[in-house]
Amino acid sequence: MLRNLVSIKDMHKDEILLILMQAKKFAQGEQWHAGKQMFVANLFFEASTRTKTSFEVAERKLGLEVIPFEAGSSSVLKGETLHDTVRTLESIGLDAVVIRHEADRYYEQLINKINIPVINAGDGCGQHPTQCLLDLFTIQQEFGRFDGLKVGIVGDIRHSRVARSDAEALRKLGAEVRFSGPPEWFEEEYLSAGEFVPMDKLVEEVDVLMLLRIQHERHDSEAEMTKEQYHQMYGLTEEREKRMKTGSIIMHPAPVNRGVEIASSLVECERSRIFKQMENGVFVRMAVLKQVLEGRLTNELANQKWQYSC
Amino acid sequence: MLRNLVSIKDMHKDEILLILMQAKKFAQGEQWHAGKQMFVANLFFEASTRTKTSFEVAERKLGLEVIPFEAGSSSVLKGETLHDTVRTLESIGLDAVVIRHEADRYYEQLINKINIPVINAGDGCGQHPTQCLLDLFTIQQEFGRFDGLKVGIVGDIRHSRVARSDAEALRKLGAEVRFSGPPEWFEEEYLSAGEFVPMDKLVEEVDVLMLLRIQHERHDSEAEMTKEQYHQMYGLTEEREKRMKTGSIIMHPAPVNRGVEIASSLVECERSRIFKQMENGVFVRMAVLKQVLEGRLTNELANQKWQYSC
Amino acid sequence: MLRNLVSIKDMHKDEILLILMQAKKFAQGEQWHAGKQMFVANLFFEASTRTKTSFEVAERKLGLEVIPFEAGSSSVLKGETLHDTVRTLESIGLDAVVIRHEADRYYEQLINKINIPVINAGDGCGQHPTQCLLDLFTIQQEFGRFDGLKVGIVGDIRHSRVARSDAEALRKLGAEVRFSGPPEWFEEEYLSAGEFVPMDKLVEEVDVLMLLRIQHERHDSEAEMTKEQYHQMYGLTEEREKRMKTGSIIMHPAPVNRGVEIASSLVECERSRIFKQMENGVFVRMAVLKQVLEGRLTNELANQKWQYSC
Repeated sequence: MLRNLVSIKDMHKDEILLILMQAKKFAQGEQWHAGKQMFVANLFFEASTRTKTSFEVAERKLGLEVIPFEAGSSSVLKGETLHDTVRTLESIGLDAVVIRHEADRYYEQLINKINIPVINAGDGCGQHPTQCLLDLFTIQQEFGRFDGLKVGIVGDIRHSRVARSDAEALRKLGAEVRFSGPPEWFEEEYLSAGEFVPMDKLVEEVDVLMLLRIQHERHDSEAEMTKEQYHQMYGLTEEREKRMKTGSIIMHPAPVNRGVEIASSLVECERSRIFKQMENGVFVRMAVLKQVLEGRLTNELANQKWQYSC
Repeated sequence: MLRNLVSIKDMHKDEILLILMQAKKFAQGEQWHAGKQMFVANLFFEASTRTKTSFEVAERKLGLEVIPFEAGSSSVLKGETLHDTVRTLESIGLDAVVIRHEADRYYEQLINKINIPVINAGDGCGQHPTQCLLDLFTIQQEFGRFDGLKVGIVGDIRHSRVARSDAEALRKLGAEVRFSGPPEWFEEEYLSAGEFVPMDKLVEEVDVLMLLRIQHERHDSEAEMTKEQYHQMYGLTEEREKRMKTGSIIMHPAPVNRGVEIASSLVECERSRIFKQMENGVFVRMAVLKQVLEGRLTNELANQKWQYSC
Repeated sequence: MLRNLVSIKDMHKDEILLILMQAKKFAQGEQWHAGKQMFVANLFFEASTRTKTSFEVAERKLGLEVIPFEAGSSSVLKGETLHDTVRTLESIGLDAVVIRHEADRYYEQLINKINIPVINAGDGCGQHPTQCLLDLFTIQQEFGRFDGLKVGIVGDIRHSRVARSDAEALRKLGAEVRFSGPPEWFEEEYLSAGEFVPMDKLVEEVDVLMLLRIQHERHDSEAEMTKEQYHQMYGLTEEREKRMKTGSIIMHPAPVNRGVEIASSLVECERSRIFKQMENGVFVRMAVLKQVLEGRLTNELANQKWQYSC
């Protein structure tokens, strides 16, 4: 039983496949309701449209009450710790929290100290497990399998929450991972997960080309390369797309820097699953929410005992 | 069938009257529900209480799920284009978006490129069609007709979204429009829509006196005139109100600058429909939302085909 | 019939007890719905997690539609008065507003000028009646009575909304109030409400120890004392907690400054009711909302008459 979702590393292959199976059911129109009024909040301490909105829609589709939380006008401004903020939300009656926070592994101050499930929507340069799950779901939807698939991950690997989670999970599930992009944005430790290959070679080999977003906000020394230079050297140009294998697909976590990671004309091309990924994100998040809330409902009697003994 | 609402110019006289008729039904207590869970978002890139709240209440009255969107904490900060933001919301499952944006004609990058309806809640100095419709509705509610009515529009005409929309629509419907206010805030091009008349003459002639808000935030050279001077020269003073025709009414899009456009004591006087306009705004917006969502429901099969072929 | 809740001073002992009784029913699982769609908004012009979220959950539990209101992006920025903002919300169809505002007695510009109930969620250094009610509820829940109870209030009494409300209400209900903390943060006028006692003496005497939050944001001359010094002189240290009476409890409105007002290790100790207070806050706010909305429903016909005569 999934009690929290903080890192893809913690998840068994079977747990991952269970989530994907449930997501598929939701994509096909299955409905699930808790059977009672349940409350969640999305605590986003970093800017986000996609992920926050995706969780919000997933929550509403499950009939949950979504309690607004604005980091910018919260008591965090009065110096309250994240632990005390979440503990407060628990006392007020929330049944789960979704958190994005700039601190790596922020969740360590919460797990086992807070009595409600925590879903990690991104921690610093660490994990982003629901993005990973929606990537996996999109691949599974396309190919029906992971075994033997060749997946190329390209770009700002060192700063990417997505690269780490995806590479690990894909290997767990039997896919073969390769990396490309600027060598100075790669790290040796990734070599255990997959080979580093020049971009022009990679595009011809892979079934799935996962482009990562250049996180301008995390780079100081960007001056070294213009956007146009990046595009020519490591981006998916129109020319490179033509050399991709039949049936191969393009993915990107978005927001896209048009003309940098990918030519603007390719964003909605036939191979692109970029907007499909967003659509799938809702179903995957519904599946995750369902799992942790079912756990919550099961543990509820125990929780109440714990609360009243306090 | 109304697919979007971006400008009053695009609307036929009959389309306008149809919206007003539906708004009247909602004012009388009629209810409408989509028959399924539908999602909308209000994207306000400029400050607003009235319009945003009015849409929100209208949406809730129709049983819609309103997905929060904070421009200030969205991926727009990461440089995402408006098109990509709205395209994202479409992928995530939204059924319509309401947008206020500081750029004139921002909607041109969306219409026919996005597959969900766009309702314009104000673009730069351009259009503000739902404000226009609520003004029309308030006039119709009062007089039961437009033909032969004399409507005076006073104030900051050059910078006013409302003035342009209203003047055009009123003429379409048979009313006679006149303008007043500081001559330097008027533009020749408006003379085709109606005469420019001194304020002291105007107040005695009109059935409807529409005062516009001085948009302090859009004027640099305001120093030329104090607020008190404006009030004496172009405002509705207590003295001028006494000279208005029997049965004539006062309108203002609000927020009111008390003591500038209108004497503070007149804001809630018997002639004033200022707060009535706000009440009516909800019914008019319900009517617009109903129309575009009915269009959406009709087109849904086609849309789904389009999405899956991608 | 409670029409507004702005100050605990306005409330009769019986009115207070009625709210507490209703809160108890909600804590025991009683449900209440208005029987029709009703709209509320929470206008928080000052940062808050606890109070805003608590109201939001209370409102959802009563099935109310909560209309988002962001002070930072509202027309208040365009210079609109609080009166005109709330009058606008009334026109748009809201049935009640909850307001926190930095101005003392901000509500005087609203009461009897606005036709919908106002619930005060904190005004400047003035009142914070729902915090007071939840404190009372927590005490009643613990001891079943107020008569003869000794309650100590410690800390930043001069700047505390809570201290004023609580001291008054507790005396009304028969409890005995004492104060402690830095003498320069105390004011003579409070002596009529209760004695000033050294902290080391106080902890041994009281049944309820109410610690107040040091409002760093309201103190300029804080340099005079370090946090550690405050803790040693006026805080609840581990040593002092050991000398508290059997069965006595610790309360704090939160957010807690750990290691200042109270040792971090005591925040969730057996005596602590800090998180219980938050839990109770929801039930008390449900009770308040129910009362004012019942009043609203009763007055509705009258209100409508008033609106249409305008």
